[in-house]
Amino acid sequence: MAPETQPKYVRVRTELEHVLADLEEGDSVPSERVLSERFSVARETVRQALQELLVEGRIERRGRGTVVSAPKMVQPLSLKSYTEGARQFGRVPSRIMVTFADAVPEESVCAGLGLAPGSTVMHLERVLLADGQKLGLESTFLPKERFGHFYETFDPETSLYTAIRAEGVTFASAEERIETALPSPRQAQLLETSTAMPMLLLRRRSFDAAGLPVEVVWSLFRGDRIAFEATLRE
Amino acid sequence: MAPETQPKYVRVRTELEHVLADLEEGDSVPSERVLSERFSVARETVRQALQELLVEGRIERRGRGTVVSAPKMVQPLSLKSYTEGARQFGRVPSRIMVTFADAVPEESVCAGLGLAPGSTVMHLERVLLADGQKLGLESTFLPKERFGHFYETFDPETSLYTAIRAEGVTFASAEERIETALPSPRQAQLLETSTAMPMLLLRRRSFDAAGLPVEVVWSLFRGDRIAFEATLRE
Repeated sequence: MAPETQPKYVRVRTELEHVLADLEEGDSVPSERVLSERFSVARETVRQALQELLVEGRIERRGRGTVVSAPKMVQPLSLKSYTEGARQFGRVPSRIMVTFADAVPEESVCAGLGLAPGSTVMHLERVLLADGQKLGLESTFLPKERFGHFYETFDPETSLYTAIRAEGVTFASAEERIETALPSPRQAQLLETSTAMPMLLLRRRSFDAAGLPVEVVWSLFRGDRIAFEATLRE
Repeated sequence: MAPETQPKYVRVRTELEHVLADLEEGDSVPSERVLSERFSVARETVRQALQELLVEGRIERRGRGTVVSAPKMVQPLSLKSYTEGARQFGRVPSRIMVTFADAVPEESVCAGLGLAPGSTVMHLERVLLADGQKLGLESTFLPKERFGHFYETFDPETSLYTAIRAEGVTFASAEERIETALPSPRQAQLLETSTAMPMLLLRRRSFDAAGLPVEVVWSLFRGDRIAFEATLRE
């Protein structure tokens, strides 16, 4: 469909940009009804445009209303941990433990850790926060043989990378796969969002200086709250 | 919500994995009604699980039914073009031109190209395909001063990077930002998907060997069809 066949939708997006340009972070956004009257279009057209802005993280629901959001947090795609990335962006990182127990993960996780299918591994699942806001849900799988003592010594609400480095382990490289996914009902509830909110799913396998796999991590980040950035070179 | 409070949903996902494991690419997936009867759960529970699989690109709608999808295409996050990435993955890339004309883009695009706000730039918008399947919508903005003659010499259904390199330009580095977004109605229609399908939005700025910006590119990729991969090092 060429743009000229959708003048109404494009006009509404443009008008909404003007409305947002006049507002500051935390200000209320006029309601769907008010906007559809102001722009003389169907509420459905306004709803679609607002839904796009919501997923872009430009606006957010607060109570029964909608307000202008803070900018997305931008994280570098790097060997750094979430903790370091958040601090670099000027936010205070924290974590809430959900699971810290033995698990028999799916085959790809065992393979990723160089273990036989059906092996028992350590599973640490945490909600990641920045300035108290829930941004992501991180599932880390660790080989028990190497890190089993963490059940005794590691405080799951602190930085895991700091604890692993304290063991003398260097994070030398990582393979990372990035895609988008919808959260399951459980994941949506843990992140206080809806099952229709697009997420960024990052699956990482980190290697130490000897080339041994250290961890497999699946991180699910709220798409309306975070973006990733990389510098690419020859 | 702890997993044990959602046994039904988790069971349905597990059962569906078993169903898919027995099927091959292109095979029909049983209907929502059949599955809800087989699993003895509400259709809503099956619908949510199927929706997740759809967004993950594990299944897709075909006509009035649903079939098992081909695996997602995995593209390296690199200075390579879409064309090179698709070939590397064993797919045949092609492009359909949507727009190739002067445009006055938003301020961030002009700034990205080192031009004054309100400058006129070249805008090339193309649907990207792999093996004939629509995967993404790419908007490239180029400085007219440098590439204006492309209106005469460049075939917009061929590789742009090949044409730029033929001018003696080296792609030396790029900044890339990755996030997720919903498509506008126009974008959804061009990509033959719905406005509820999560997309991966990549915004790139490429620099030549002299550090001059060559292009600003916004690429919107279907989240059910593509994933990106990076190797991270110290």
